[in-house]
Amino acid sequence: MKRILAAIALTLAGTAATGADQLPMAPNGIAYLTGYRSWEAVAPSWRDDKGQIRIILGNPTAMAALRQGTRPFPDGTTFAKLAWSAKKHPKFPVATVPDTFVQVEFMVKDGAKYKTTGGWGFARFVGNTLRPYGKDPSFVQECFGCHTPVKDNDFVFTHLAPIP
Amino acid sequence: MKRILAAIALTLAGTAATGADQLPMAPNGIAYLTGYRSWEAVAPSWRDDKGQIRIILGNPTAMAALRQGTRPFPDGTTFAKLAWSAKKHPKFPVATVPDTFVQVEFMVKDGAKYKTTGGWGFARFVGNTLRPYGKDPSFVQECFGCHTPVKDNDFVFTHLAPIP
Repeated sequence: MKRILAAIALTLAGTAATGADQLPMAPNGIAYLTGYRSWEAVAPSWRDDKGQIRIILGNPTAMAALRQGTRPFPDGTTFAKLAWSAKKHPKFPVATVPDTFVQVEFMVKDGAKYKTTGGWGFARFVGNTLRPYGKDPSFVQECFGCHTPVKDNDFVFTHLAPIP
Repeated sequence: MKRILAAIALTLAGTAATGADQLPMAPNGIAYLTGYRSWEAVAPSWRDDKGQIRIILGNPTAMAALRQGTRPFPDGTTFAKLAWSAKKHPKFPVATVPDTFVQVEFMVKDGAKYKTTGGWGFARFVGNTLRPYGKDPSFVQECFGCHTPVKDNDFVFTHLAPIP
């Protein structure tokens, strides 16, 4: 019995370790986040140049900051931008809808840790294998450069899509 | 003291009644739902013909049914489709983003109550005044007619936008 329990314990420990090891990690050390698909929607967007349809989601800290107009965003704010290729809805072609998953991008606020990039840690995971984007930690300069035009909104492009 | 308490009680009762009275109601008796803005996102969409960008949100019953592939959707399933006019992002014009609120539409599943329209109750609230759409309860025939092409998916157009 003792041996069986020990074997089960080893198996469970092994499974847990494997699960953690399998989370993809960006070259700057930001691991793929889990659970973000259930966060609230900040807004949808459409990219003309890429033909992609997107949703930006925010964790509770992000949503509270958006609703209260808090800028800069507090530490712990996290956004997830999900992108899909687009297709005409087969039964209603005036509607364009998501087809296949393209990527997810994260912005994680930690003013001290990511001081050189406006307090934001960036990460992108591409395709169904969630391949981390970037060859080394300097990839974030590309992200940060693109976000510089919205410095006045603490480097965040997306505004909360309003309801009455 | 008794009079003061009575006056406070009357005031509170009056406030509550006013609040409930103020919820707009569709001609078929479906009142504007509150709290739906925090539901999970099912998918974004783009309407070519209207130039609108949208998000479809689902309550927990809807999300569970989508994830488990349950059809027909169980009673209690509720979807909210939010539509905004669209604009180019002023700092990043290849991105099209929400501008002003256009409308929200609800689909509420109750197989018995809404038997004649596939088990779905429909409602639409338009503009910042949330004006109920439709002159009388027959307006739902327009909604139901439009959804008939997706009868095979229990009259729901939107599929869960996938992540890996």
